[in-house]
Amino acid sequence: MGATALDAKNNDGLLRALRRQPVERTPIWLMRQAGRYLPEYRATRGRAGDFMALCQNPQLALEVTLQPLARFDLDAAILFSDILTVPDAMGLGLYFETGEGPKFRKPVRSRAAIDALPIPDPEADLGYVLDAVRVIRQELDGRVPLIGFSGSPWTLATYMVEGGSSRDFRQIKTLLYNDPEALDALLDKLSEAVVGYLNGQIAAGAQVVQIFDTWGGVLTTDAYRRFSLRHMERIVAGLHPGSDGGQVPVILFTKQGGHWLELIAKSGCQAVGLDWTFDIGRARQLVGDQVALQGNLDPAVLFASTAAVRAEAARVLDGFGPGPGHVFNLGHGIQPGVNPDRVKDLVDAVHNHPRG
Amino acid sequence: MGATALDAKNNDGLLRALRRQPVERTPIWLMRQAGRYLPEYRATRGRAGDFMALCQNPQLALEVTLQPLARFDLDAAILFSDILTVPDAMGLGLYFETGEGPKFRKPVRSRAAIDALPIPDPEADLGYVLDAVRVIRQELDGRVPLIGFSGSPWTLATYMVEGGSSRDFRQIKTLLYNDPEALDALLDKLSEAVVGYLNGQIAAGAQVVQIFDTWGGVLTTDAYRRFSLRHMERIVAGLHPGSDGGQVPVILFTKQGGHWLELIAKSGCQAVGLDWTFDIGRARQLVGDQVALQGNLDPAVLFASTAAVRAEAARVLDGFGPGPGHVFNLGHGIQPGVNPDRVKDLVDAVHNHPRG
Repeated sequence: MGATALDAKNNDGLLRALRRQPVERTPIWLMRQAGRYLPEYRATRGRAGDFMALCQNPQLALEVTLQPLARFDLDAAILFSDILTVPDAMGLGLYFETGEGPKFRKPVRSRAAIDALPIPDPEADLGYVLDAVRVIRQELDGRVPLIGFSGSPWTLATYMVEGGSSRDFRQIKTLLYNDPEALDALLDKLSEAVVGYLNGQIAAGAQVVQIFDTWGGVLTTDAYRRFSLRHMERIVAGLHPGSDGGQVPVILFTKQGGHWLELIAKSGCQAVGLDWTFDIGRARQLVGDQVALQGNLDPAVLFASTAAVRAEAARVLDGFGPGPGHVFNLGHGIQPGVNPDRVKDLVDAVHNHPRG
Repeated sequence: MGATALDAKNNDGLLRALRRQPVERTPIWLMRQAGRYLPEYRATRGRAGDFMALCQNPQLALEVTLQPLARFDLDAAILFSDILTVPDAMGLGLYFETGEGPKFRKPVRSRAAIDALPIPDPEADLGYVLDAVRVIRQELDGRVPLIGFSGSPWTLATYMVEGGSSRDFRQIKTLLYNDPEALDALLDKLSEAVVGYLNGQIAAGAQVVQIFDTWGGVLTTDAYRRFSLRHMERIVAGLHPGSDGGQVPVILFTKQGGHWLELIAKSGCQAVGLDWTFDIGRARQLVGDQVALQGNLDPAVLFASTAAVRAEAARVLDGFGPGPGHVFNLGHGIQPGVNPDRVKDLVDAVHNHPRG
C-alpha cells in the first residue's frame, strides 16, 4: 500500500459519470481489476489456500480489493468476491476444482428442488461479504467509490441448474423449453435473494452496484426478456437508497447483449455495460440521454503493445465522443497472463485523453 | 437409403426462397444435419477410422451427406466436409485429437510464415472435396439442391494462428493489434484461396454456397469490418456462375453477428444466416427486401419435448411472418446427444406450418 494513487481524496468521477454529469477526466475501472494477472494477488491467494477461503475472509478480500488501486490510478474499487456466493448460501455447496471452474455439489434440477430452496438472509448467511464491504469502505476512506455486485438471476441459475460452467447450457435450456414456469419460480427466488443481497451491500457501504449478466447473451430475444431482463428490472426497482439517502447507481452488464441495448436502457438502470463487440458511438446514438455507458475495450488489447493499448483506448474514447456519461472499462474481465504494465498504460491513456 | 423422402424430384424450395420467390412451404435444412447425433453417422465414422479420413474419402462423404435426407424431409443437402481443409491444403498439418477439437502441427505466427503460405490449387490439393461434390450431386439427381461451403478467411485464420480452437483468441488478437498489416496479408491469401475453393465446388456442382464466419463475433465492430466482412465481400464478388449459367446464391453466416446485420446485408450475399439470439422479425424489418434470411431456432430446443420443438418452430416462423425469403435453420449446428426424433418433429413442424 501507500502508493500515491491512494492519496487523493474524494474522487467522485465515477459517480458523476454514472449520473451523466461533467467530469474532468473519463473515470476508469476494470472488470477483474483484482485478479490473477497481478503477482500480489497470486501471493495472497496462495496464503488463503483456495479461492473460496479468499472470498470468505474479509481481511484478505480487503487486501486483494486494494491491490490494483495501489498500482494504478483507478477511479473505483470493486468488492472482491464471487457471483456464486448467493447460490452457495442457498445450500448448493459451491467448490472450485483446479482448471475446472466453479461447481455445485447439489445442482438444482427439479421443481421440488426449486421449491425447497431457501432465500438467504444477507447478514446471517452472507455476512462475510457484508463485512468485506464494511472494511473496504472504511479503508478506502472516500478516496474512490466502492462498487458492489451480484450475478443476474439468469446467470446464477445457469450455474445452479448445470452444476457448474457450461458450453451448451443443455440442462437449463431443457428446463426453459420444457417447464418455463419452474424456471420462472427459480428466477423469482433468485431475484428476491439478489435484492436482499445488494441491499445488504448498500447498507454496508457499497456506493454503486453492478449486475453481471454474463450468460444472458445465450438466450433468444423473447427468452432474454422473460428469463433475464425482467428479473434485473425487478432488482433495480427493489434497491434501497445509499447511506447518504441518495440513489445508488446500477450498472447492468449483459455480455453479448449489445443488440438488446434499447431494451436494457429502459430497465431503470443508470448505466449499461457494453462488451467490446458493440460500437460505443452507435450505442450512444441509440440510448441518447437515457443512461450512461460503460466500456468497452477488447480485453485482448492488453496482450498487445503500449502503442496498441493507447490507440485502441483512443478509439473507444473518440467513439463515445465529447460530453458526459462515459465510464471507461474493458468489455469483459482482465485475462490471466496480462502484463500489469499494459494496465498502467491503459489507465494513463484514458486519463490523459483530451475530453472534447 | 430408399426412403420416400428421396423420391420427390426437383425440390427447388431452397433456391426459390434464397431468391425471395414464393414457395409452397418454408424450406428447411440444418447446420450439421449430418453429424454425431445420428447413429448411422457414428457407424460410418467408425468404419472410416478418424474424422479426416471420413472427409477425404468421397464415397464415405457421400454416404454421410445423404444419411439425414434418408431420415428427414429436408430441402437441401450440404456437402460433408470440414472448414479446415483449406489451411490443411496450405501445409499446416491438420489433425484431430479426441475431445480436443482440431489442431495444426504448424501454426502460423510470423510475417515470414504468412508470406511463405501457398495458395492451394483446388483440383490438385483439394480434389477429394470436389470429387465428393461431384458424386453427391450425381447421387442426389436433382431431388434437392446441394450446398457447398467454406470457412470465412477470419475464422480460418483464428485456427491457423492459434494452432487450434481457442477461448480467448490471444495469439490472433495480439497479431491483430500489434501487426494488422501482417493479418491483412494472411487474410488476403485466405480470401484468394477461398474464392478458388468455392469456385471449384461450384464447377463441381454446388448450387448454393455458405460462408461460415464462426468467429467473426469475437471482434470489435471496426475489426469485424476490416478483418472479416471485407474479405467475405471480396469472396462474394469473386464467385463464378453455376453450371446452368445462373448466379449461385451465397449465404453469409456470422455467429453473434446480429448487431452487424445491416452491414452484412450490403455485402452482396443473397442471404444472411442468423444465430438464435437475434429476433428474426426485427431482422426482417432491418433488411427489408435486400436479402433472404436463414435461421434461427435455438439448437438447444432439440433437447426438449416435441411440444416445445413445435412451439419454438412456430415462434420463428411467425416471427419472420408471411411473404418470401425465409430459409428455416437452426441458429447453430445440431449438438451431439440430440434425439433424431426431435429433428423429425422439427422438419414436420416447419413443413406443416401455414404460410401467411
